[in-house]
Amino acid sequence: MAAAVAQQSEQDGVVADHHAYAGILRTMATTTTVTTETILDEVAEIAAQLRVDSIRASTSAGSGHPTSSMSAADLLAVLIARHLRYDWGDPGLPDNDRLVFSKGHASPLLYAVFKAAGVVTDEELVAGYRRFDQRLQGHPTPALPWVDVATGSLGQGLPAGVGIALAGKYLEQRPYRVWVLCGDSEMAEGSMWEALDKASYYKLSNLIALVDVNRLGQRGETELGWDVDRYARRAEAFGARTLTIDGHDLTQIDRALASAEQPDAKDRPTVIFARTVKGRGFGEIEDSPDWHGKPFPPDMADRAIAGLGGVRHRVLQGLRPEPTRRASRGTAPPAATRPRPTYSLGQKVATRKAYGDALTALGARDQRVVALDGEVNNSTYAEEFARDHPNRYFEMFIAEQQMVAAATGLAARGYRPFVSTFAAFLTRAYDFIRMASVSGVDLAMSGSHAGVEIGADGPSQMGLEDLAMFRAVHGSTVLYPSDATSTAALVDAMGTTTGISYLRTTRGAYPVLYAEDESFPIGGAKVLREDDQDQVTLVGAGITLYACLEAADRLAQGGIHARVLDCYSIKPIDINALVAAVTATAGRIVVAEDHHPEGGLGSAVAEALVSVGAPKLHLTHLAVRGMPGSGSTDEQLAWAGIDADHIVAAARALVDH
Amino acid sequence: MAAAVAQQSEQDGVVADHHAYAGILRTMATTTTVTTETILDEVAEIAAQLRVDSIRASTSAGSGHPTSSMSAADLLAVLIARHLRYDWGDPGLPDNDRLVFSKGHASPLLYAVFKAAGVVTDEELVAGYRRFDQRLQGHPTPALPWVDVATGSLGQGLPAGVGIALAGKYLEQRPYRVWVLCGDSEMAEGSMWEALDKASYYKLSNLIALVDVNRLGQRGETELGWDVDRYARRAEAFGARTLTIDGHDLTQIDRALASAEQPDAKDRPTVIFARTVKGRGFGEIEDSPDWHGKPFPPDMADRAIAGLGGVRHRVLQGLRPEPTRRASRGTAPPAATRPRPTYSLGQKVATRKAYGDALTALGARDQRVVALDGEVNNSTYAEEFARDHPNRYFEMFIAEQQMVAAATGLAARGYRPFVSTFAAFLTRAYDFIRMASVSGVDLAMSGSHAGVEIGADGPSQMGLEDLAMFRAVHGSTVLYPSDATSTAALVDAMGTTTGISYLRTTRGAYPVLYAEDESFPIGGAKVLREDDQDQVTLVGAGITLYACLEAADRLAQGGIHARVLDCYSIKPIDINALVAAVTATAGRIVVAEDHHPEGGLGSAVAEALVSVGAPKLHLTHLAVRGMPGSGSTDEQLAWAGIDADHIVAAARALVDH
Repeated sequence: MAAAVAQQSEQDGVVADHHAYAGILRTMATTTTVTTETILDEVAEIAAQLRVDSIRASTSAGSGHPTSSMSAADLLAVLIARHLRYDWGDPGLPDNDRLVFSKGHASPLLYAVFKAAGVVTDEELVAGYRRFDQRLQGHPTPALPWVDVATGSLGQGLPAGVGIALAGKYLEQRPYRVWVLCGDSEMAEGSMWEALDKASYYKLSNLIALVDVNRLGQRGETELGWDVDRYARRAEAFGARTLTIDGHDLTQIDRALASAEQPDAKDRPTVIFARTVKGRGFGEIEDSPDWHGKPFPPDMADRAIAGLGGVRHRVLQGLRPEPTRRASRGTAPPAATRPRPTYSLGQKVATRKAYGDALTALGARDQRVVALDGEVNNSTYAEEFARDHPNRYFEMFIAEQQMVAAATGLAARGYRPFVSTFAAFLTRAYDFIRMASVSGVDLAMSGSHAGVEIGADGPSQMGLEDLAMFRAVHGSTVLYPSDATSTAALVDAMGTTTGISYLRTTRGAYPVLYAEDESFPIGGAKVLREDDQDQVTLVGAGITLYACLEAADRLAQGGIHARVLDCYSIKPIDINALVAAVTATAGRIVVAEDHHPEGGLGSAVAEALVSVGAPKLHLTHLAVRGMPGSGSTDEQLAWAGIDADHIVAAARALVDH
Repeated sequence: MAAAVAQQSEQDGVVADHHAYAGILRTMATTTTVTTETILDEVAEIAAQLRVDSIRASTSAGSGHPTSSMSAADLLAVLIARHLRYDWGDPGLPDNDRLVFSKGHASPLLYAVFKAAGVVTDEELVAGYRRFDQRLQGHPTPALPWVDVATGSLGQGLPAGVGIALAGKYLEQRPYRVWVLCGDSEMAEGSMWEALDKASYYKLSNLIALVDVNRLGQRGETELGWDVDRYARRAEAFGARTLTIDGHDLTQIDRALASAEQPDAKDRPTVIFARTVKGRGFGEIEDSPDWHGKPFPPDMADRAIAGLGGVRHRVLQGLRPEPTRRASRGTAPPAATRPRPTYSLGQKVATRKAYGDALTALGARDQRVVALDGEVNNSTYAEEFARDHPNRYFEMFIAEQQMVAAATGLAARGYRPFVSTFAAFLTRAYDFIRMASVSGVDLAMSGSHAGVEIGADGPSQMGLEDLAMFRAVHGSTVLYPSDATSTAALVDAMGTTTGISYLRTTRGAYPVLYAEDESFPIGGAKVLREDDQDQVTLVGAGITLYACLEAADRLAQGGIHARVLDCYSIKPIDINALVAAVTATAGRIVVAEDHHPEGGLGSAVAEALVSVGAPKLHLTHLAVRGMPGSGSTDEQLAWAGIDADHIVAAARALVDH
């Protein structure tokens, strides 16, 4: 019999572990009196309800994606009724399975699931969806307690799911599974393949992706259409266990999910490619390319709902699997007392080295700290953390998108990820950084090798847009220390900073400027040269601070008094220190930065001074205004016009004017 | 005999079309007197020279990647001596094959190739490499006439190569092949798989990737190590023809390249995975993880060079294949006279619609214009271009990185690509946009659905960082028109704009403000309300301009005269118009923008006014300072504080102060 079923299923294109499934059915038969058929009848009712509610919510809102919800309704009905181990009343339960909607536009379906789970009322679903100041947003965000990460930028839910699965397997060591509903269109995003690559590399058998292959994207057919076998070959080549099913056959779905729940002998992640029909359940528009992202007008909605058997208000009960409840793993080992690293004044230390030192020490004190790097940890010095805390270090190889997404997933599980690569290469992950901010996670990032300072490698390796990029992220903190002492202090601060924080570090080693007991509050600045005859303010951060100091010394020799500010905190910036300085220096100010002129330190200074109605300013902004090539650090800084010579000249011009 | 060779080769793991290779050898035998063995002996000499020169250049510079060059030296020697059809004296020859170093850090090898080709002197190679103001930069850029696109950010050369191959196959219809040398580490970037996916979708049999599988990344072993078969399974699943070879066996390489040159029956791209040894040719450091990116000290370099047979100065001759030279395809068809679309004053038209209209008309007049979109062309209205100019439209599905990279490749071939997707999703491609700027190409991009104006879809779909992102790109032009007339004019202007240009468009339809004969120079602004009693300046762009106009009308009713500026050109910005306005309004200015507060219009205005020493400013900057949710457009604009109510209040506060 089992053999016959298997044979039949294989003819249907089902590749599933039927023995495992049979075992589950046996267990169920001995513990309940219901038959599988009865159960699936009930699941079919749930599926119809999910479709009806997806239609009602989107029609009521006047926007949304009912058809993309309807294609996946059967998958979700079987999942939530029979496989998702989740205590809906306690979303914070550590052993709950996780559910990520990588196809975030299917939010009506997700919210219909929440209604079926009994945690969102029918009224909220219909009247709250996509409304102002409501939590059932157009795309899911963690404003909802059952949502871990924000989605809606396609190709990000699965990568974030990899981060959650890493936490579950390696850090929490809990038995929860991470179920991710993916769209077929988003399989065109390289990030999905980065995710499968890393899921396979890290043997994330706790990760199960359901791909809703409804053939249609926003504007027509996808590249691979309904060719689930081609998808499966790709996923298999990337190291996944794959299954292909009819996504509207509840029995096939149930078997596939049961099979996916069984540990894979090779510890592979599982990807189920389900052939589905967009708009399934409403014949008028099934498989139509013209109904992407459109709510049905009320008359169509009425017809569709009637055809689906009308409105229901079923709540899952009895069917729902319970999460495995494991005892707490006890308290974490007492934190080590490893102090922040210290450096001697004048000692030459690269800030990237101080980043590695401080992060490693912070990791000893705070077990929640984890580190990820993009295959350059011997450049960013994340290798020190990897050496001392190998269990909390995740090498992400050259996959910056996946690196940030994994960090987002880890942060969603309560960890404090620190992500590092060259500043230039964090641009690769900007969409993921932006979405991490929407997710509301606390995420620290470090970009090394900033600016033309790096010298001979040339513009491809120079971060010259990173400050602008990070400043524009909502709620971000942007830091650019010059020396090792301030770097170490700021790394510590990032360990408790809310939201996205960014630390820019420098390639070369420069003298330590600050004593170890100096404090560096976020939002502060340091005044390094000051007297009551100051005529001009010089503002630097990172590498340019040294040029400002040298310039001040040379100006002093010429009788010009210059105040020097270290704006190590670029966002928030120390407005008071800036106002005090320009007030003292008759509005004369030179800002020098190793960044393109837009959106960086100079912008931050100008915006801050203008915002408080500062007096008339005489501001000279020195920045990298050309396209650099190769050369030595000194040649580059001189060419860009951000070295001491240029600062001296700019200051003189302001004072002489 | 052929069968025996094939069998032997298969045992060696060579999967190649030996019949094709045998055919080539036969042709050669009948036209020359040299034997293959003699030829390959000469190629071995070239390979040794490439290694020696890679060592010499990097040791002389004191930086660079000799070991990553040495692993690929045999591949390149065979390629340039026997397969690359290139007239080195005429790099502009349209029929030349193209050579892209996706592993841009192997620049010593590339420059050694240029020496062997006779176009770079030994002196330049050794004394110019990585030096200031020299063209042999740390990573290749089109400062060199034989380089099409800049590389150095890994995972970008192959995607750009796809763009070149698209041009060759579909636009130029020329027989050149695109050879791309890839590293194995960069296969971890999702963008490489986006590239293979699109190469296969578009049947780019003219694209041949050579992957230098030397097993070692910057900090240790890659994910897949030397498992070329696993790489090949992945590439094959993505639709490529694959071959796996020993990358140091000249005969195997030669056969594989010959095979790759033969058209594939399925028109697939070809990927050759070559197992190689990092540092090959210098036993002391072969396959060592400790020699990434480090030049050899002079004593080691001397030993290595001696072991490789010393310095040579061979120049390829006799061996080198010639490009197919086809007659010019004649002159392009006379340009149509299709004029820019026009709109009636007051007519409600979305600027994204005007983008589609104007681009389609521009495409009729300029045959070099091509369009690419990321599966949202019915939202961006690029679908109009696709409908009228299907041969010049490339659907890139949801793969924004590949979209921008393909556009870079197309631009490198002389086309004028226009790229479109939601503004939010262009963040996905920031690293590619940055590198397009390093490549020096002219590339136009349009981001639709900008800001909270989109309403219910929520923050994942809202471009709120795009202005900051594009402004920070070197040499960029950033435009944000409010109405259809100005949009159409600016799209035309983008057709001849140098460098990266960006046009931000809005979802909703708003009234046309300008008559069709109005001109909109880049760097200009429009004064829409003005009299000699102006008390406050209101600056808007895009959606906020309408709020400024409404605010001005309401202020006028209350007796306050407001000047209104349309800053449709955000970079460059019209400093003169801004200075004139704030001078006339006693420094009082309100800037409203649908963007996060950092790096956008407000920054541009503040920076501009400060840069020219404007008088004391009283500037109120209204921007999106929170994290939006869903809601109607009006609710969103009110919540963000950028609607007419808030502008009125801000203006009153400034005037009353």
